[in-house]
Amino acid sequence: MNTANSNSPSASGTFYGLGVGPGDPELITLKAARLIKQCDVICYLCNDSDSDRPGRSQSKQIAQDVIDDRAYNAIEIAIPMPYKRDRTAANQAYDQGAEAIRAALRKGQTVVFLCEGDPLFFGSYAYLQERLCEEFTCIAIPGISSPNAASAVAGIPLTMQKENYAVLSGRLSDEKILSHLNEFDSLVLMKVGQSRSRLLNLLRHSGRLQEAVYIEYATREQQKVVYDVATLDGGDGPYFSLFIITRQQRNV
Amino acid sequence: MNTANSNSPSASGTFYGLGVGPGDPELITLKAARLIKQCDVICYLCNDSDSDRPGRSQSKQIAQDVIDDRAYNAIEIAIPMPYKRDRTAANQAYDQGAEAIRAALRKGQTVVFLCEGDPLFFGSYAYLQERLCEEFTCIAIPGISSPNAASAVAGIPLTMQKENYAVLSGRLSDEKILSHLNEFDSLVLMKVGQSRSRLLNLLRHSGRLQEAVYIEYATREQQKVVYDVATLDGGDGPYFSLFIITRQQRNV
Repeated sequence: MNTANSNSPSASGTFYGLGVGPGDPELITLKAARLIKQCDVICYLCNDSDSDRPGRSQSKQIAQDVIDDRAYNAIEIAIPMPYKRDRTAANQAYDQGAEAIRAALRKGQTVVFLCEGDPLFFGSYAYLQERLCEEFTCIAIPGISSPNAASAVAGIPLTMQKENYAVLSGRLSDEKILSHLNEFDSLVLMKVGQSRSRLLNLLRHSGRLQEAVYIEYATREQQKVVYDVATLDGGDGPYFSLFIITRQQRNV
Repeated sequence: MNTANSNSPSASGTFYGLGVGPGDPELITLKAARLIKQCDVICYLCNDSDSDRPGRSQSKQIAQDVIDDRAYNAIEIAIPMPYKRDRTAANQAYDQGAEAIRAALRKGQTVVFLCEGDPLFFGSYAYLQERLCEEFTCIAIPGISSPNAASAVAGIPLTMQKENYAVLSGRLSDEKILSHLNEFDSLVLMKVGQSRSRLLNLLRHSGRLQEAVYIEYATREQQKVVYDVATLDGGDGPYFSLFIITRQQRNV
Protein backbone atom coordinates (compact mmCIF):
# COMPACT_ATOMS: atom_id res chain seq x y z
CA MET A 1 0.00 0.00 0.00
CA ASN A 2 2.93 2.32 -0.60
CA THR A 3 1.84 3.65 -3.97
CA ALA A 4 -1.13 5.84 -3.23
CA ASN A 5 -0.17 8.58 -5.67
CA SER A 6 -0.59 6.33 -8.68
CA ASN A 7 -0.88 8.74 -11.55
CA SER A 8 -2.88 6.48 -13.81
CA PRO A 9 -4.04 8.71 -16.66
CA SER A 10 -7.79 8.68 -16.98
CA ALA A 11 -10.73 10.96 -17.60
CA SER A 12 -11.76 10.70 -13.97
CA GLY A 13 -11.40 13.40 -11.37
CA THR A 14 -8.72 13.78 -8.71
CA PHE A 15 -9.25 13.16 -5.02
CA TYR A 16 -7.43 15.52 -2.65
CA GLY A 17 -6.98 14.99 1.08
CA LEU A 18 -6.55 18.46 2.53
CA GLY A 19 -5.12 19.10 5.97
CA VAL A 20 -7.02 22.08 7.38
CA GLY A 21 -4.86 22.29 10.51
CA PRO A 22 -5.58 22.20 14.23
CA GLY A 23 -8.48 24.64 14.49
CA ASP A 24 -7.44 28.23 13.81
CA PRO A 25 -8.92 28.91 10.34
CA GLU A 26 -5.80 30.94 9.44
CA LEU A 27 -3.63 27.84 9.82
CA ILE A 28 -4.93 26.48 6.52
CA THR A 29 -2.26 26.53 3.80
CA LEU A 30 -2.55 28.65 0.66
CA LYS A 31 -2.71 25.42 -1.36
CA ALA A 32 -5.58 23.92 0.64
CA ALA A 33 -7.44 27.24 0.46
CA ARG A 34 -7.02 27.37 -3.32
CA LEU A 35 -8.25 23.81 -3.77
CA ILE A 36 -11.27 24.43 -1.52
CA LYS A 37 -12.15 27.40 -3.72
CA GLN A 38 -11.56 25.62 -7.06
CA CYS A 39 -12.96 22.13 -6.47
CA ASP A 40 -16.36 20.77 -7.51
CA VAL A 41 -17.13 18.70 -4.42
CA ILE A 42 -16.27 19.23 -0.74
CA CYS A 43 -16.41 16.20 1.63
CA TYR A 44 -15.97 15.98 5.36
CA LEU A 45 -16.81 13.80 8.34
CA CYS A 46 -19.67 14.94 10.56
CA ASN A 47 -21.46 13.77 13.71
CA ASP A 48 -24.00 11.04 13.10
CA SER A 49 -27.67 11.11 14.12
CA ASP A 50 -26.94 9.59 17.55
CA SER A 51 -24.81 12.59 18.47
CA ASP A 52 -25.83 15.67 20.49
CA ARG A 53 -25.25 17.81 17.44
CA PRO A 54 -25.94 15.72 14.34
CA GLY A 55 -24.38 17.00 11.13
CA ARG A 56 -21.76 19.11 12.93
CA SER A 57 -18.33 18.94 11.32
CA GLN A 58 -15.12 20.21 12.95
CA SER A 59 -13.13 20.19 9.73
CA LYS A 60 -15.84 22.03 7.77
CA GLN A 61 -16.09 24.60 10.54
CA ILE A 62 -12.34 25.26 10.29
CA ALA A 63 -12.63 25.80 6.52
CA GLN A 64 -15.92 27.71 6.59
CA ASP A 65 -14.42 31.15 5.87
CA VAL A 66 -12.63 29.78 2.82
CA ILE A 67 -15.77 27.94 1.66
CA ASP A 68 -17.76 31.18 2.01
CA ASP A 69 -15.21 32.83 -0.29
CA ARG A 70 -16.15 30.60 -3.23
CA ALA A 71 -17.73 32.15 -6.29
CA TYR A 72 -20.43 29.45 -6.40
CA ASN A 73 -21.59 26.74 -4.02
CA ALA A 74 -19.81 23.40 -4.10
CA ILE A 75 -21.56 20.07 -3.97
CA GLU A 76 -21.09 18.69 -0.45
CA ILE A 77 -20.70 15.12 0.73
CA ALA A 78 -21.11 14.83 4.51
CA ILE A 79 -19.99 11.47 5.90
CA PRO A 80 -21.71 10.80 9.25
CA MET A 81 -19.23 9.08 11.58
CA PRO A 82 -20.39 7.17 14.66
CA TYR A 83 -18.35 7.83 17.82
CA LYS A 84 -17.67 4.28 18.91
CA ARG A 85 -14.50 2.40 19.72
CA ASP A 86 -15.78 -0.39 17.46
CA ARG A 87 -14.15 -0.06 14.04
CA THR A 88 -16.88 -1.95 12.15
CA ALA A 89 -19.28 0.98 12.19
CA ALA A 90 -16.50 3.40 11.20
CA ASN A 91 -15.45 1.17 8.31
CA GLN A 92 -19.05 1.03 7.08
CA ALA A 93 -19.21 4.82 7.18
CA TYR A 94 -15.96 5.06 5.18
CA ASP A 95 -17.33 2.51 2.68
CA GLN A 96 -20.44 4.60 2.12
CA GLY A 97 -18.46 7.84 1.93
CA ALA A 98 -16.03 6.32 -0.59
CA GLU A 99 -18.99 5.19 -2.70
CA ALA A 100 -20.36 8.74 -2.94
CA ILE A 101 -16.89 10.14 -3.70
CA ARG A 102 -16.33 7.45 -6.34
CA ALA A 103 -19.49 8.50 -8.17
CA ALA A 104 -18.31 12.12 -8.29
CA LEU A 105 -14.77 11.18 -9.43
CA ARG A 106 -16.19 9.02 -12.22
CA LYS A 107 -18.00 12.10 -13.53
CA GLY A 108 -14.60 13.81 -13.75
CA GLN A 109 -15.20 16.07 -10.76
CA THR A 110 -12.43 17.33 -8.48
CA VAL A 111 -13.19 16.23 -4.94
CA VAL A 112 -11.53 17.53 -1.77
CA PHE A 113 -11.80 15.88 1.63
CA LEU A 114 -11.30 18.25 4.59
CA CYS A 115 -9.23 16.67 7.33
CA GLU A 116 -8.38 18.20 10.72
CA GLY A 117 -4.65 18.53 11.31
CA ASP A 118 -2.61 16.64 8.74
CA PRO A 119 -4.39 14.15 6.46
CA LEU A 120 -1.82 11.37 7.00
CA PHE A 121 -0.97 11.93 10.68
CA PHE A 122 -3.75 10.04 12.48
CA GLY A 123 -5.97 11.49 9.76
CA SER A 124 -9.28 10.14 8.50
CA TYR A 125 -8.17 10.74 4.90
CA ALA A 126 -6.03 7.58 5.05
CA TYR A 127 -9.16 5.41 5.20
CA LEU A 128 -10.66 7.01 2.11
CA GLN A 129 -7.37 6.99 0.21
CA GLU A 130 -6.99 3.25 0.71
CA ARG A 131 -10.49 2.70 -0.69
CA LEU A 132 -9.98 4.95 -3.73
CA CYS A 133 -6.30 4.91 -4.70
CA GLU A 134 -6.47 1.88 -6.99
CA GLU A 135 -8.92 3.58 -9.32
CA PHE A 136 -8.24 7.31 -8.93
CA THR A 137 -5.38 9.75 -8.48
CA CYS A 138 -5.23 10.61 -4.78
CA ILE A 139 -3.11 13.53 -3.57
CA ALA A 140 -2.52 14.51 0.05
CA ILE A 141 -1.85 18.16 0.91
CA PRO A 142 -0.12 18.32 4.29
CA GLY A 143 -1.56 20.35 7.16
CA ILE A 144 -0.40 21.62 10.55
CA SER A 145 -0.58 18.71 13.00
CA SER A 146 -1.49 19.07 16.67
CA PRO A 147 2.02 18.53 18.13
CA ASN A 148 3.39 21.41 16.05
CA ALA A 149 0.39 23.60 16.91
CA ALA A 150 0.71 22.79 20.61
CA SER A 151 4.43 23.53 20.75
CA ALA A 152 3.78 26.87 19.04
CA VAL A 153 1.05 27.97 21.46
CA ALA A 154 3.23 26.89 24.41
CA GLY A 155 6.30 28.56 22.87
CA ILE A 156 8.42 25.48 23.49
CA PRO A 157 10.83 24.05 20.91
CA LEU A 158 9.68 20.50 20.21
CA THR A 159 13.13 19.46 18.96
CA MET A 160 16.56 21.08 18.67
CA GLN A 161 19.88 19.86 17.25
CA LYS A 162 20.33 16.11 17.66
CA GLU A 163 17.35 15.52 19.92
CA ASN A 164 15.18 12.51 19.22
CA TYR A 165 11.40 12.68 19.45
CA ALA A 166 8.54 10.27 20.03
CA VAL A 167 4.77 10.55 19.73
CA LEU A 168 2.87 8.10 21.93
CA SER A 169 -0.78 7.38 22.50
CA GLY A 170 -1.94 7.93 26.07
CA ARG A 171 -3.37 4.41 25.91
CA LEU A 172 0.06 2.76 25.62
CA SER A 173 1.10 0.55 28.58
CA ASP A 174 2.74 2.07 31.65
CA GLU A 175 5.90 0.10 31.05
CA LYS A 176 6.33 1.33 27.47
CA ILE A 177 5.57 4.93 28.34
CA LEU A 178 8.12 4.89 31.18
CA SER A 179 10.74 3.32 28.97
CA HIS A 180 10.25 5.93 26.24
CA LEU A 181 10.20 8.79 28.79
CA ASN A 182 13.59 7.53 29.87
CA GLU A 183 14.93 7.17 26.33
CA PHE A 184 13.67 10.17 24.35
CA ASP A 185 14.62 13.84 24.68
CA SER A 186 11.26 15.12 23.45
CA LEU A 187 7.88 13.41 23.57
CA VAL A 188 4.27 14.15 22.86
CA LEU A 189 1.65 12.10 24.65
CA MET A 190 -1.48 12.37 22.50
CA LYS A 191 -5.14 11.67 23.23
CA VAL A 192 -4.63 12.23 26.94
CA GLY A 193 -8.37 12.19 27.74
CA GLN A 194 -9.24 9.60 30.34
CA SER A 195 -5.58 8.64 30.83
CA ARG A 196 -4.63 12.03 32.27
CA SER A 197 -4.14 11.15 35.92
CA ARG A 198 -2.37 7.91 35.02
CA LEU A 199 -0.02 9.84 32.71
CA LEU A 200 0.66 12.43 35.42
CA ASN A 201 1.72 9.60 37.72
CA LEU A 202 4.02 8.20 35.05
CA LEU A 203 5.56 11.64 34.49
CA ARG A 204 6.15 11.96 38.24
CA HIS A 205 7.61 8.47 38.42
CA SER A 206 9.99 9.15 35.51
CA GLY A 207 11.24 12.37 37.09
CA ARG A 208 10.01 14.42 34.13
CA LEU A 209 6.94 16.08 35.65
CA GLN A 210 8.70 19.45 35.65
CA GLU A 211 9.63 19.02 32.01
CA ALA A 212 6.02 18.53 30.90
CA VAL A 213 3.49 21.06 29.64
CA TYR A 214 -0.20 20.29 29.13
CA ILE A 215 -2.19 21.74 26.21
CA GLU A 216 -5.90 21.44 25.41
CA TYR A 217 -7.49 22.48 22.12
CA ALA A 218 -4.37 24.17 20.70
CA THR A 219 -5.25 27.22 18.55
CA ARG A 220 -9.00 26.84 19.23
CA GLU A 221 -11.15 29.20 21.27
CA GLN A 222 -11.16 26.87 24.28
CA GLN A 223 -7.34 26.63 24.18
CA LYS A 224 -5.65 26.04 27.55
CA VAL A 225 -1.93 25.79 28.36
CA VAL A 226 -0.77 24.55 31.78
CA TYR A 227 2.97 24.98 32.41
CA ASP A 228 2.89 23.59 35.95
CA VAL A 229 1.22 20.26 35.30
CA ALA A 230 1.38 19.35 39.01
CA THR A 231 -1.54 21.75 39.42
CA LEU A 232 -3.81 19.64 37.18
CA ASP A 233 -6.49 17.87 39.17
CA GLY A 234 -7.10 14.14 38.97
CA GLY A 235 -9.94 14.45 36.47
CA ASP A 236 -10.08 13.55 32.78
CA GLY A 237 -8.98 15.78 29.94
CA PRO A 238 -10.81 16.22 26.63
CA TYR A 239 -9.87 14.15 23.58
CA PHE A 240 -7.95 17.07 22.09
CA SER A 241 -5.35 17.33 24.84
CA LEU A 242 -1.69 16.42 24.99
CA PHE A 243 1.48 16.61 27.03
CA ILE A 244 4.73 17.92 25.56
CA ILE A 245 7.86 16.79 27.40
CA THR A 246 11.24 18.35 26.57
CA ARG A 247 14.63 18.42 28.30
CA GLN A 248 15.12 21.19 30.86
CA GLN A 249 18.78 21.38 29.88
CA ARG A 250 19.05 21.44 26.12
CA ASN A 251 22.23 21.03 24.18
CA VAL A 252 22.29 24.39 22.39
CA MET B 1 12.70 28.34 29.56
CA ASN B 2 9.09 27.22 29.15
CA THR B 3 7.49 30.63 29.16
CA ALA B 4 8.41 32.07 25.80
CA ASN B 5 5.04 33.66 25.12
CA SER B 6 5.38 36.05 28.05
CA ASN B 7 2.87 38.75 27.25
CA SER B 8 4.60 41.52 29.16
CA PRO B 9 2.78 44.70 28.13
CA SER B 10 5.13 47.21 26.59
CA ALA B 11 5.39 49.69 23.78
CA SER B 12 7.80 47.42 21.94
CA GLY B 13 7.06 45.40 18.85
CA THR B 14 6.23 41.73 18.59
CA PHE B 15 8.58 39.08 17.23
CA TYR B 16 6.97 36.32 15.14
CA GLY B 17 8.62 33.07 14.15
CA LEU B 18 6.86 32.00 10.96
CA GLY B 19 7.03 28.47 9.61
CA VAL B 20 7.10 28.80 5.81
CA GLY B 21 6.89 25.04 5.25
CA PRO B 22 9.07 22.55 3.38
CA GLY B 23 9.61 24.32 0.07
CA ASP B 24 6.41 24.57 -2.01
CA PRO B 25 5.48 28.28 -1.68
CA GLU B 26 1.79 27.28 -1.52
CA LEU B 27 2.41 25.37 1.71
CA ILE B 28 2.66 28.63 3.64
CA THR B 29 -0.33 29.16 5.95
CA LEU B 30 -2.80 32.00 5.51
CA LYS B 31 -1.61 33.37 8.86
CA ALA B 32 2.08 33.40 7.92
CA ALA B 33 1.20 35.00 4.57
CA ARG B 34 -0.81 37.72 6.29
CA LEU B 35 1.98 38.48 8.75
CA ILE B 36 4.58 38.62 5.96
CA LYS B 37 2.39 41.17 4.20
CA GLN B 38 1.62 43.27 7.30
CA CYS B 39 4.93 43.33 9.17
CA ASP B 40 7.55 46.08 9.21
CA VAL B 41 10.67 43.92 9.17
CA ILE B 42 11.40 40.55 7.53
CA CYS B 43 14.36 38.49 8.82
CA TYR B 44 15.84 35.27 7.56
CA LEU B 45 19.02 33.22 7.62
CA CYS B 46 21.19 33.32 4.51
CA ASN B 47 24.45 31.81 3.28
CA ASP B 48 27.54 33.58 4.57
CA SER B 49 30.36 35.01 2.49
CA ASP B 50 32.30 31.70 2.51
CA SER B 51 29.47 29.98 0.66
CA ASP B 52 29.16 29.30 -3.07
CA ARG B 53 26.15 31.56 -3.19
CA PRO B 54 26.52 34.22 -0.50
CA GLY B 55 23.30 35.92 0.57
CA ARG B 56 21.07 33.13 -0.74
CA SER B 57 18.21 32.28 1.61
CA GLN B 58 16.02 29.16 1.30
CA SER B 59 13.30 30.49 3.59
CA LYS B 60 13.12 33.85 1.81
CA GLN B 61 12.92 32.08 -1.53
CA ILE B 62 9.93 30.04 -0.30
CA ALA B 63 8.16 33.24 0.81
CA GLN B 64 9.20 35.38 -2.18
CA ASP B 65 5.79 35.36 -3.91
CA VAL B 66 4.11 36.55 -0.73
CA ILE B 67 6.81 39.19 -0.16
CA ASP B 68 6.30 40.43 -3.73
CA ASP B 69 2.61 40.86 -2.92
CA ARG B 70 3.30 43.52 -0.30
CA ALA B 71 2.07 47.05 -0.89
CA TYR B 72 5.46 48.51 0.10
CA ASN B 73 8.92 47.11 0.70
CA ALA B 74 9.73 45.76 4.13
CA ILE B 75 12.97 46.41 5.94
CA GLU B 76 15.04 43.21 5.71
CA ILE B 77 17.48 41.71 8.18
CA ALA B 78 19.56 38.95 6.60
CA ILE B 79 21.49 36.85 9.12
CA PRO B 80 24.51 35.17 7.45
CA MET B 81 24.93 31.69 8.88
CA PRO B 82 28.21 29.77 8.56
CA TYR B 83 27.83 26.11 7.56
CA LYS B 84 30.02 24.51 10.17
CA ARG B 85 29.43 21.78 12.70
CA ASP B 86 30.98 24.06 15.30
CA ARG B 87 28.20 25.79 17.25
CA THR B 88 30.32 28.77 18.34
CA ALA B 89 30.15 30.48 14.97
CA ALA B 90 26.40 29.78 14.71
CA ASN B 91 25.81 31.22 18.17
CA GLN B 92 27.73 34.36 17.25
CA ALA B 93 25.57 34.74 14.14
CA TYR B 94 22.40 34.36 16.24
CA ASP B 95 23.76 36.91 18.74
CA GLN B 96 24.30 39.45 15.97
CA GLY B 97 20.93 38.70 14.37
CA ALA B 98 19.16 39.07 17.71
CA GLU B 99 20.88 42.43 18.24
CA ALA B 100 19.52 43.78 14.94
CA ILE B 101 16.03 42.39 15.69
CA ARG B 102 16.14 43.88 19.20
CA ALA B 103 16.79 47.34 17.78
CA ALA B 104 13.76 47.06 15.49
CA LEU B 105 11.50 45.73 18.27
CA ARG B 106 12.53 48.57 20.58
CA LYS B 107 11.28 51.00 17.93
CA GLY B 108 7.88 49.27 18.16
CA GLN B 109 8.22 47.51 14.81
CA THR B 110 6.62 44.14 14.07
CA VAL B 111 9.34 41.71 13.06
CA VAL B 112 8.84 38.32 11.39
CA PHE B 113 11.51 35.64 11.09
CA LEU B 114 11.03 33.24 8.16
CA CYS B 115 11.82 29.68 9.12
CA GLU B 116 11.80 26.64 6.82
CA GLY B 117 9.40 23.93 7.94
CA ASP B 118 8.08 24.52 11.44
CA PRO B 119 9.78 27.17 13.61
CA LEU B 120 10.01 24.93 16.70
CA PHE B 121 10.72 21.57 15.03
CA PHE B 122 14.49 21.66 14.52
CA GLY B 123 13.87 25.29 13.58
CA SER B 124 16.35 28.15 13.74
CA TYR B 125 13.66 30.38 15.30
CA ALA B 126 14.23 28.66 18.66
CA TYR B 127 17.70 30.24 18.95
CA LEU B 128 16.36 33.75 18.37
CA GLN B 129 13.37 33.24 20.63
CA GLU B 130 15.61 32.26 23.53
CA ARG B 131 17.65 35.44 23.05
CA LEU B 132 14.62 37.75 22.81
CA CYS B 133 11.78 36.27 24.86
CA GLU B 134 12.74 37.88 28.18
CA GLU B 135 12.31 41.36 26.78
CA PHE B 136 9.75 40.99 23.98
CA THR B 137 6.57 39.13 23.12
CA CYS B 138 7.56 36.22 20.89
CA ILE B 139 4.92 34.24 19.00
CA ALA B 140 5.52 31.12 16.92
CA ILE B 141 3.24 30.38 13.96
CA PRO B 142 3.46 26.68 13.13
CA GLY B 143 4.43 25.49 9.66
CA ILE B 144 4.38 22.22 7.70
CA SER B 145 7.35 20.13 8.85
CA SER B 146 9.34 17.84 6.59
CA PRO B 147 8.00 14.49 7.91
CA ASN B 148 4.42 15.58 7.14
CA ALA B 149 5.44 16.92 3.74
CA ALA B 150 7.35 13.74 2.91
CA SER B 151 4.49 11.43 3.89
CA ALA B 152 2.14 13.50 1.72
CA VAL B 153 4.33 13.35 -1.38
CA ALA B 154 4.86 9.60 -0.86
CA GLY B 155 1.12 9.11 -0.19
CA ILE B 156 1.87 7.05 2.92
CA PRO B 157 0.02 7.48 6.22
CA LEU B 158 2.63 8.39 8.82
CA THR B 159 0.44 7.17 11.69
CA MET B 160 -2.95 5.47 12.05
CA GLN B 161 -5.03 4.45 15.07
CA LYS B 162 -2.87 3.49 18.05
CA GLU B 163 0.47 3.48 16.23
CA ASN B 164 3.44 5.06 17.95
CA TYR B 165 5.93 7.20 16.07
CA ALA B 166 9.55 8.26 16.45
CA VAL B 167 11.73 10.82 14.71
CA LEU B 168 15.44 10.02 14.86
CA SER B 169 18.56 11.71 13.59
CA GLY B 170 20.54 9.68 11.09
CA ARG B 171 23.56 10.34 13.31
CA LEU B 172 22.18 8.32 16.24
CA SER B 173 24.14 5.17 17.16
CA ASP B 174 23.48 1.88 15.35
CA GLU B 175 22.33 0.25 18.55
CA LYS B 176 19.72 2.92 19.32
CA ILE B 177 18.39 3.04 15.77
CA LEU B 178 17.99 -0.75 15.67
CA SER B 179 16.25 -0.77 19.04
CA HIS B 180 13.79 1.92 17.93
CA LEU B 181 13.19 0.22 14.55
CA ASN B 182 12.20 -2.82 16.57
CA GLU B 183 9.98 -0.89 18.97
CA PHE B 184 8.11 1.71 16.91
CA ASP B 185 5.39 1.24 14.29
CA SER B 186 6.29 4.37 12.35
CA LEU B 187 9.61 6.16 12.17
CA VAL B 188 11.23 9.00 10.31
CA LEU B 189 15.02 8.99 9.99
CA MET B 190 15.96 12.61 9.34
CA LYS B 191 19.12 14.22 7.98
CA VAL B 192 20.07 11.05 6.16
CA GLY B 193 22.91 12.68 4.18
CA GLN B 194 26.22 10.95 4.74
CA SER B 195 24.61 8.22 6.87
CA ARG B 196 22.55 6.83 4.00
CA SER B 197 24.37 3.57 3.31
CA ARG B 198 24.78 2.90 7.04
CA LEU B 199 21.03 3.46 7.56
CA LEU B 200 20.19 1.16 4.63
CA ASN B 201 22.23 -1.56 6.33
CA LEU B 202 20.38 -1.00 9.60
CA LEU B 203 17.02 -1.17 7.81
CA ARG B 204 18.09 -4.44 6.20
CA HIS B 205 19.34 -5.80 9.51
CA SER B 206 16.07 -4.91 11.27
CA GLY B 207 13.98 -6.61 8.59
CA ARG B 208 12.25 -3.33 7.73
CA LEU B 209 13.93 -2.50 4.42
CA GLN B 210 10.72 -3.27 2.53
CA GLU B 211 8.75 -1.01 4.86
CA ALA B 212 10.94 2.00 4.13
CA VAL B 213 10.52 4.79 1.59
CA TYR B 214 13.20 7.37 0.80
CA ILE B 215 12.35 11.00 0.05
CA GLU B 216 14.64 13.87 -0.99
CA TYR B 217 13.60 17.53 -1.08
CA ALA B 218 9.90 16.90 -0.42
CA THR B 219 7.68 19.41 -2.30
CA ARG B 220 10.69 21.13 -3.93
CA GLU B 221 11.58 21.06 -7.61
CA GLN B 222 14.32 18.47 -7.08
CA GLN B 223 11.89 16.20 -5.19
CA LYS B 224 12.61 12.48 -5.43
CA VAL B 225 10.66 9.54 -3.97
CA VAL B 226 12.15 6.02 -3.96
CA TYR B 227 9.70 3.29 -2.94
CA ASP B 228 12.15 0.43 -3.42
CA VAL B 229 14.99 1.64 -1.23
CA ALA B 230 17.08 -1.46 -2.06
CA THR B 231 17.72 0.23 -5.42
CA LEU B 232 19.52 3.18 -3.77
CA ASP B 233 23.24 3.11 -4.41
CA GLY B 234 25.82 3.27 -1.65
CA GLY B 235 26.42 7.00 -2.05
CA ASP B 236 25.44 9.88 0.20
CA GLY B 237 22.10 11.67 0.15
CA PRO B 238 21.60 15.43 0.44
CA TYR B 239 20.90 17.06 3.81
CA PHE B 240 17.19 17.33 2.98
CA SER B 241 16.53 13.60 2.72
CA LEU B 242 14.74 11.16 4.98
CA PHE B 243 13.43 7.66 5.34
CA ILE B 244 9.83 6.94 6.37
CA ILE B 245 9.25 3.49 7.84
CA THR B 246 5.71 2.22 8.44
CA ARG B 247 4.18 -1.20 9.13
CA GLN B 248 3.30 -3.24 6.05
CA GLN B 249 0.32 -4.67 7.93
CA ARG B 250 -1.54 -1.87 9.64
CA ASN B 251 -4.24 -2.30 12.21
CA VAL B 252 -7.12 -0.62 10.36
